[in-house]
Amino acid sequence: MATLASSALEHHIAAVPLIDQHVHGCWLTGGDRRRFENALNEANTEPLADSGFDSQLGFAVRAHCAPILGLPRHADPQQYWERRSQFTETELARIFLSAAGVSDWLVDTGIGDGVADVTTLAELSGGRAHELIRLEQVAEQAAHAAGDYASAFQEILHRRAASAAGTKSILAYRGGFEGVLSEPSPAQVSAAADRWRAAGGVRLRDRVLLRFGLHQALRLGKPLQFHVGFGDRDCDLHKANPLHLLDFLRQSGDTPIVLLHCYPYEREAGYLAQAFNNVYVDGGLSITFLGARAPAFIARLLEMAPFHKIVYSSDGFGPAELHFLGAILWRNGIQRVLQRFVDDGDWSEADAIRVVDMIAHRNATHLYRLPPAVSD
Amino acid sequence: MATLASSALEHHIAAVPLIDQHVHGCWLTGGDRRRFENALNEANTEPLADSGFDSQLGFAVRAHCAPILGLPRHADPQQYWERRSQFTETELARIFLSAAGVSDWLVDTGIGDGVADVTTLAELSGGRAHELIRLEQVAEQAAHAAGDYASAFQEILHRRAASAAGTKSILAYRGGFEGVLSEPSPAQVSAAADRWRAAGGVRLRDRVLLRFGLHQALRLGKPLQFHVGFGDRDCDLHKANPLHLLDFLRQSGDTPIVLLHCYPYEREAGYLAQAFNNVYVDGGLSITFLGARAPAFIARLLEMAPFHKIVYSSDGFGPAELHFLGAILWRNGIQRVLQRFVDDGDWSEADAIRVVDMIAHRNATHLYRLPPAVSD
Amino acid sequence: MATLASSALEHHIAAVPLIDQHVHGCWLTGGDRRRFENALNEANTEPLADSGFDSQLGFAVRAHCAPILGLPRHADPQQYWERRSQFTETELARIFLSAAGVSDWLVDTGIGDGVADVTTLAELSGGRAHELIRLEQVAEQAAHAAGDYASAFQEILHRRAASAAGTKSILAYRGGFEGVLSEPSPAQVSAAADRWRAAGGVRLRDRVLLRFGLHQALRLGKPLQFHVGFGDRDCDLHKANPLHLLDFLRQSGDTPIVLLHCYPYEREAGYLAQAFNNVYVDGGLSITFLGARAPAFIARLLEMAPFHKIVYSSDGFGPAELHFLGAILWRNGIQRVLQRFVDDGDWSEADAIRVVDMIAHRNATHLYRLPPAVSD
Repeated sequence: MATLASSALEHHIAAVPLIDQHVHGCWLTGGDRRRFENALNEANTEPLADSGFDSQLGFAVRAHCAPILGLPRHADPQQYWERRSQFTETELARIFLSAAGVSDWLVDTGIGDGVADVTTLAELSGGRAHELIRLEQVAEQAAHAAGDYASAFQEILHRRAASAAGTKSILAYRGGFEGVLSEPSPAQVSAAADRWRAAGGVRLRDRVLLRFGLHQALRLGKPLQFHVGFGDRDCDLHKANPLHLLDFLRQSGDTPIVLLHCYPYEREAGYLAQAFNNVYVDGGLSITFLGARAPAFIARLLEMAPFHKIVYSSDGFGPAELHFLGAILWRNGIQRVLQRFVDDGDWSEADAIRVVDMIAHRNATHLYRLPPAVSD
Repeated sequence: MATLASSALEHHIAAVPLIDQHVHGCWLTGGDRRRFENALNEANTEPLADSGFDSQLGFAVRAHCAPILGLPRHADPQQYWERRSQFTETELARIFLSAAGVSDWLVDTGIGDGVADVTTLAELSGGRAHELIRLEQVAEQAAHAAGDYASAFQEILHRRAASAAGTKSILAYRGGFEGVLSEPSPAQVSAAADRWRAAGGVRLRDRVLLRFGLHQALRLGKPLQFHVGFGDRDCDLHKANPLHLLDFLRQSGDTPIVLLHCYPYEREAGYLAQAFNNVYVDGGLSITFLGARAPAFIARLLEMAPFHKIVYSSDGFGPAELHFLGAILWRNGIQRVLQRFVDDGDWSEADAIRVVDMIAHRNATHLYRLPPAVSD
Repeated sequence: MATLASSALEHHIAAVPLIDQHVHGCWLTGGDRRRFENALNEANTEPLADSGFDSQLGFAVRAHCAPILGLPRHADPQQYWERRSQFTETELARIFLSAAGVSDWLVDTGIGDGVADVTTLAELSGGRAHELIRLEQVAEQAAHAAGDYASAFQEILHRRAASAAGTKSILAYRGGFEGVLSEPSPAQVSAAADRWRAAGGVRLRDRVLLRFGLHQALRLGKPLQFHVGFGDRDCDLHKANPLHLLDFLRQSGDTPIVLLHCYPYEREAGYLAQAFNNVYVDGGLSITFLGARAPAFIARLLEMAPFHKIVYSSDGFGPAELHFLGAILWRNGIQRVLQRFVDDGDWSEADAIRVVDMIAHRNATHLYRLPPAVSD
């Protein structure tokens, strides 16, 4: 370790409260070891053939979560599983969610039966929670509503948005970003909706209706999050390169757009955050899965993006360990990266502390108009 | 800091004269703070909504330019702006251009009213300056010339080239690199020129005429520079990936081709420099905007490219700080990267010093057939 | 250097036996310096205009191979060439192949007259050697065989596969990965084969027959290796991005697929290794050419890929130095990367040693069902 005594920066990072601006519910009911190990692999949609523990994320669980449960650092998988099994999922949630040091959770409720909802996540963590509305879910609700599709979509979106922090699109999983993303005409929407309703109105892949949803979200004006890059293999990763959003961003006006995850396109995403006043970047999910390699990724996020355009999230889903690991790996990673900038004389320590606050909570507080959580 | 005593490598890098092989004019007339802060953002074509100082480049200005103006390292933006305002732009130019340690400036004169021209840049810096001819500007001159377009283009190009170091293409901003880039027939050129002239002959985007210009530059034989990757959002970044130039490079003969900027495609560009005897790479502009992250980028430029194929530039434009920052960030960055190679036993210090000379000035001297500026 | 005393990890890495799971023959007959220097450039298919020594690989030869031949570290090119010339190529092969510490070589026999065949490589190295069958070579054999093309292909493939470890495809060099890669119908194969045979049956580029070969390899069930990314300029590098294989991988069943080289797409390849139980990654060739930058590349290979999905190779071809450099650069690189993970507290040293064993030989032993070479 480079420094013998802790720096002010290190102290500050260890304690800074976070806004986790994109997260899902944690498990509420127990499961077997297979379920747990599969949750350590994001990309594979099939049961794992090997241990999920032999990965950066698996090693991070053993390095950072084991001590939280009273085990030695690097406890082996069997030990970890046995110890974990002594708790219920809600007990684990209380432990790991508090350990994350998060004041506010912005919860994408678009996936996951049997996981914590917005209210439960707030209660389990002792923090506050706010909803993110998945646009493709609104579309499915509109498909099954009475009357005109477009009107139903707008009505549902505005009703749900009244208490929500923002919206979320999984266009990356529904054909990707390539191609035209301009606003379709009412006649096109109506015709496409008729076809989709006739086909059952499930798992929206119709480009006209996807585009309609995006432009409704732009009109709404609340921040619009996009799944970008890294995810499961149902997504064609190269079609989730955010540069394919360029034309859409050029017509997106003032509505904030948040690019989530971004691996391996984090440099492209940072460029877009420099290029557009309304574009933000977030390395959530990627940081968690990169484990010991998270610092390198965090450093690349700090290249072209202006510092007021970077936000934090864990994208935790399922095991509450993931909600905690997002936070601890971000804290460890940004500490190493910024300490080096300071040690090299490129940044002042005061600036490093200020940028930590911006990414940890200030940028998100401003972006989502959240009530201030901390005294600054 | 890793070393207590300075190494011979560090001393050498601090003093090595540079050839800035792609640069624009610096400002000659004063402006407000808004103009200055906008110049700290390359990608955004709109007025910034936030401070341009909260970025790697903004922090680099405060770390490296503040001491040049007699302020403490990391002086805050307000202090920096007030101090800067005590000088005229030409005073600032004299200060920062000399501080860059550049013997020769190769100046792309294709943009910028109110900035220094070739002669003025030489005078302000106390160095020598040479012109780079922007091909798309030659095209516009030919569009408004009398007689046959192709003949006019050739005549203007050869006349201007007599005293110029090379040519430059901004094809990246005029539709990008994808698609056919072979030489069009005279009949195609003539028909395209007629259409473009009839339409006014401004802002060339016609692919036939763009291709014609490139092949004229190949015939000329002087080095041909391409804007690659990072730039403003008018460019579709993914269409400025230099791999889309592969077919063009395969037919480019012996004319040297220089790939500029290259972020985030610097590894692809380095590969091309290995693949073609006539391809060179340059990380200018990117290095400036990466600030504290410049070393990581410089290290990637030193991957696949042979060392005699890497050249230096700042791509400075506007504030004279940028002409200086390109130099100081390159010096600091290559020092850290090469010192590590030496400390790890992978390179000898003598080789590191030799590679510094190659990138700093030897490769460019050879490439542009410049009179030697230094005694080696 | 960070540590004064050697760590257990360092000792382990220095001695661990390797399985070189993708390699070619080394030279058996002498040549001139030009041949040697050209072999230090992978991408360029023309004679080099400058020294092949002024590159990361050239510096690595001088740093790591010179001492093996009794010269000081960083001996200059002339010294190195003179010393090398005192040995025959088979003497050099015996020296460098043993110094690599490789127990098993998996040899792609698809290229290279005048280089060592499988048996000779085993004999020269004192290790074991196994064949990899190049599918495009099988196709050419089938084109010139009697009778039905498909039957001939299957017969040759199965006959050769009886004693082979796996298959290899150079689809990257025959049009790349973009487009449909599903299995063609027998009628399509028959028609395409007739056309190709009529045209001479050389250098297969017909997509139908390329696809046929891939699906025959899937049916065979032995590991199928793909050239991915970095290679010579006959390959369109961007068409060798492994993400274009996504649809093919989705239909590849249980047959192991090994992605070779991967630069600059190693992060994409690691993602695929996480996404598919049957996908493996290997950074061979890239590691050799990156020299002092190999650690950064090895670190990126350790991002998204589960650790049981990463294998080692040198891709050595020609000078026996390359067979050795792959090994020494991998050893040095993984040592630096893993030591840092351990020093930072992210990994235990015991885990680091276990992962070294997995990548060095365990994963390949399992994948290719090789008899165990070492006592673990």
